[in-house]
Amino acid sequence: MTITRADDRVMDLGKLFPADRFVCDAASRSAFESDGLAAFRAKPLAVVIPETADEIVAAVRWCFENDVPFVARGSGTSLSGGSLPVADGIVIALNRMNRILDLNPDARTAVVEPGVINLKVSQAADPYGLYFAPDPSSQTVCTIGGNVAFNAGGAHCLKYGMTSNHVLGMKVVTAAGEVVTMGGASTESIGPDYTGLFCGSEGLFGIALEITLRLLPKPEMFHTVLIGYDSLRAAGDAVSAVIESGLLPGAIEIMDAVSIEAAEAAVKCNYPTGAAAVLIVELEGPKERIAFERELLQRVITATSPVVQMIAKDHEQRMGIWKGRKSVFSAVGRLSPDFLVQDGVVPRNRLGEALVAIEKLSVDSGIRIANVFHAGDGNLHPLIMFDGNIDGMLHRAEAVAADLSQLCISMGGSITGEHGVGMEKRDFLAKMYDANTVEMFDRLRRAFDPKLISNPGKMFPGPEAPSLGMAGLHPLEKAGVIQRE
Amino acid sequence: MTITRADDRVMDLGKLFPADRFVCDAASRSAFESDGLAAFRAKPLAVVIPETADEIVAAVRWCFENDVPFVARGSGTSLSGGSLPVADGIVIALNRMNRILDLNPDARTAVVEPGVINLKVSQAADPYGLYFAPDPSSQTVCTIGGNVAFNAGGAHCLKYGMTSNHVLGMKVVTAAGEVVTMGGASTESIGPDYTGLFCGSEGLFGIALEITLRLLPKPEMFHTVLIGYDSLRAAGDAVSAVIESGLLPGAIEIMDAVSIEAAEAAVKCNYPTGAAAVLIVELEGPKERIAFERELLQRVITATSPVVQMIAKDHEQRMGIWKGRKSVFSAVGRLSPDFLVQDGVVPRNRLGEALVAIEKLSVDSGIRIANVFHAGDGNLHPLIMFDGNIDGMLHRAEAVAADLSQLCISMGGSITGEHGVGMEKRDFLAKMYDANTVEMFDRLRRAFDPKLISNPGKMFPGPEAPSLGMAGLHPLEKAGVIQRE
Repeated sequence: MTITRADDRVMDLGKLFPADRFVCDAASRSAFESDGLAAFRAKPLAVVIPETADEIVAAVRWCFENDVPFVARGSGTSLSGGSLPVADGIVIALNRMNRILDLNPDARTAVVEPGVINLKVSQAADPYGLYFAPDPSSQTVCTIGGNVAFNAGGAHCLKYGMTSNHVLGMKVVTAAGEVVTMGGASTESIGPDYTGLFCGSEGLFGIALEITLRLLPKPEMFHTVLIGYDSLRAAGDAVSAVIESGLLPGAIEIMDAVSIEAAEAAVKCNYPTGAAAVLIVELEGPKERIAFERELLQRVITATSPVVQMIAKDHEQRMGIWKGRKSVFSAVGRLSPDFLVQDGVVPRNRLGEALVAIEKLSVDSGIRIANVFHAGDGNLHPLIMFDGNIDGMLHRAEAVAADLSQLCISMGGSITGEHGVGMEKRDFLAKMYDANTVEMFDRLRRAFDPKLISNPGKMFPGPEAPSLGMAGLHPLEKAGVIQRE
Repeated sequence: MTITRADDRVMDLGKLFPADRFVCDAASRSAFESDGLAAFRAKPLAVVIPETADEIVAAVRWCFENDVPFVARGSGTSLSGGSLPVADGIVIALNRMNRILDLNPDARTAVVEPGVINLKVSQAADPYGLYFAPDPSSQTVCTIGGNVAFNAGGAHCLKYGMTSNHVLGMKVVTAAGEVVTMGGASTESIGPDYTGLFCGSEGLFGIALEITLRLLPKPEMFHTVLIGYDSLRAAGDAVSAVIESGLLPGAIEIMDAVSIEAAEAAVKCNYPTGAAAVLIVELEGPKERIAFERELLQRVITATSPVVQMIAKDHEQRMGIWKGRKSVFSAVGRLSPDFLVQDGVVPRNRLGEALVAIEKLSVDSGIRIANVFHAGDGNLHPLIMFDGNIDGMLHRAEAVAADLSQLCISMGGSITGEHGVGMEKRDFLAKMYDANTVEMFDRLRRAFDPKLISNPGKMFPGPEAPSLGMAGLHPLEKAGVIQRE
């Protein structure tokens, strides 16, 4: 192992941690070199594994004093490359910061450390009839710290909102090493929404040390229906009909024919055959209300001319329906050697139009695209399928992805609904916002991170945009530390 | 009129506006010297009345270049002194910025200028069956710009959230004169919630030029019930029962005996007599759903042993119930020469405890306190009644107000739910948050307003807290520009 000056300094950091929680050998560091967006890799100088908030603060302060960049990492499930390390920085791995510090059933709150797994919160709250609402597909592995950093969504954010709607307060260490408090234990707060500012900041502001979450009472019952249509457009129209009826389902999801085929092949979910698209609608709430709402839903659905319909009769059938939906990302992997998961948003009333445009993109490019989406939100997850072993295919797939992002922008939507900008979409930030606005974003960031050492290189366009005042940005590309697979 | 150097400079600003929209004579300026918190007064050097966004930007840039502080003002209804002018600064009056620029029934959005009256948005949306949900009691006069600046709430924010939940995007001029964009036309946005950061910033970051609002479909019907109890505690307990039943009413309000007496005397609202407290619960939604929910509500209410109950049979009776509730602030003025409106928040599950503590505060201090509150949110509006003509009474009333704020903080709540910090509560900011945190708030503010010229002296503790890095604060107190009435 070549010792550079940066490495020397990092060995000093090692003195702050016991040997088994300071990782600096090349093999072990390799385990941290990528995240859910595997197209990017970078090996950090070292990894520290704090077990207390004080240790996190000490590591951040050391980085600040020594001008060493850091990337906080939970389970590394980011689909936008948001937790990609930087090659001359360190990783602060938060997996051992996994304690639920307080759970108050009366106030319906939980105070957790950032490394707590999303699903563990609901499991801990379960004996009190409570749960944590945000449910990203990765909820069995992803951490609350990552959910906060990327303002994670999930199938049920139609009804309950994103992670930021469920974070009441936080204790945070800024990138400059100061410990600050945001929000509190109540949903009403004073002044600007600092908690909301931190949620979705993609690790650029600092690290959350303690997070106060809002818990919700578990729905008394669910009513889950899967409805097949003869076209994607018909499924899209049915979404509008459901919303216009005044119903607010817990989730409204759509899968197209390719996604259905993939899910069927992968997990044998036994979806009814013959549909070009399926719509999943899930009502949830008190028994009496569901009894009423299911009748209303039935009348609405009947009027949308479905091809086939399947109502979950019990918990097992409900889980079967969700198993199909939640398997799509991995299932598409069986149909295609590689794929890019996209995460665009279009206004819900332009969903049909967007689907037609995506179909055209697919035909024009000759690249197959599977569609699954949180239809109630207008949040699309097209899966762009390609074979990375064929020369030039990754580039062609990326070109289609760029066209999809541009499409969302031009329709008045967004380049990301829940996966974040990360590495993947940073060139689009300056396409969605003018230079003044990106400069203001940058100034706010510098209020937390004057040296630009916290997760540098993410979200903001790179040095190719010098007008953005990014001269101080850590030279991720200049140094050539990113290798494409 | 004495010409000072500051006045000289202000005359230059006058060259940017036609004479009838540049107000500098003493009598006209007096009209702007106070807002809804009449205990404070300050006469601005001049008032400009822009009619276009460009004129607002020109005024702000002039202020920035000339180091002249400014206060943006809509209708001046702030109850926390948030739109109080500064004596050596100008007021930018936004009343003529009152156009609805776009109304899109399909997307359910409206783009408005900051001076549009809250209620006008709902009136414009009405032909399309839509409305703007946030409904502060002042909605017939207050402006959207002010609603945004103070993140206004209202009786129906229990169900629909605060103003920030209904602002999709904004075009803003920062205090440094830059025009920036936040959010967009969709509910899903990327990265940090900048729109939420601007909402509730109390005019310290700059001025919103265009605001994109989310519109909601008008509820098909309402079901409004007024329930009398023999104690305030019983009414508080009923709130928990309603919430625990799984119902999410549009509004849950409580008025105590003093408030009922005041409302009855003022507007003859014909509330049933003999109740120590009344609870107002309003269900709203599609007809079929209400038919179901009203039965559930009836069962819940019957179990709470009410003394008396009144169900609104038609629109007129519903308006009668709300007339009583919405008149309380002005009605209390008939019982007492002066009063201070408070705006504290306690966790909803500690409401009963808070009411007992407030009762004790009233008894101990010998000062009468009327209680009305958005009970579903735990948002209290105690009205502290006193006679300002009696020497020392204002001070005693303020001491009780301070004790109330401290009570809310100690119970894990907040010093303000919807009125803002403004002039009134700024000393409490440093009691709710530690010095590190207030410093971070200050740094974020400076990212928008490096010269501290936008609504200076509000929200942040004054020069008495020099450790907060407020050396650059406009010396509002030093100059003695604030006079107590």
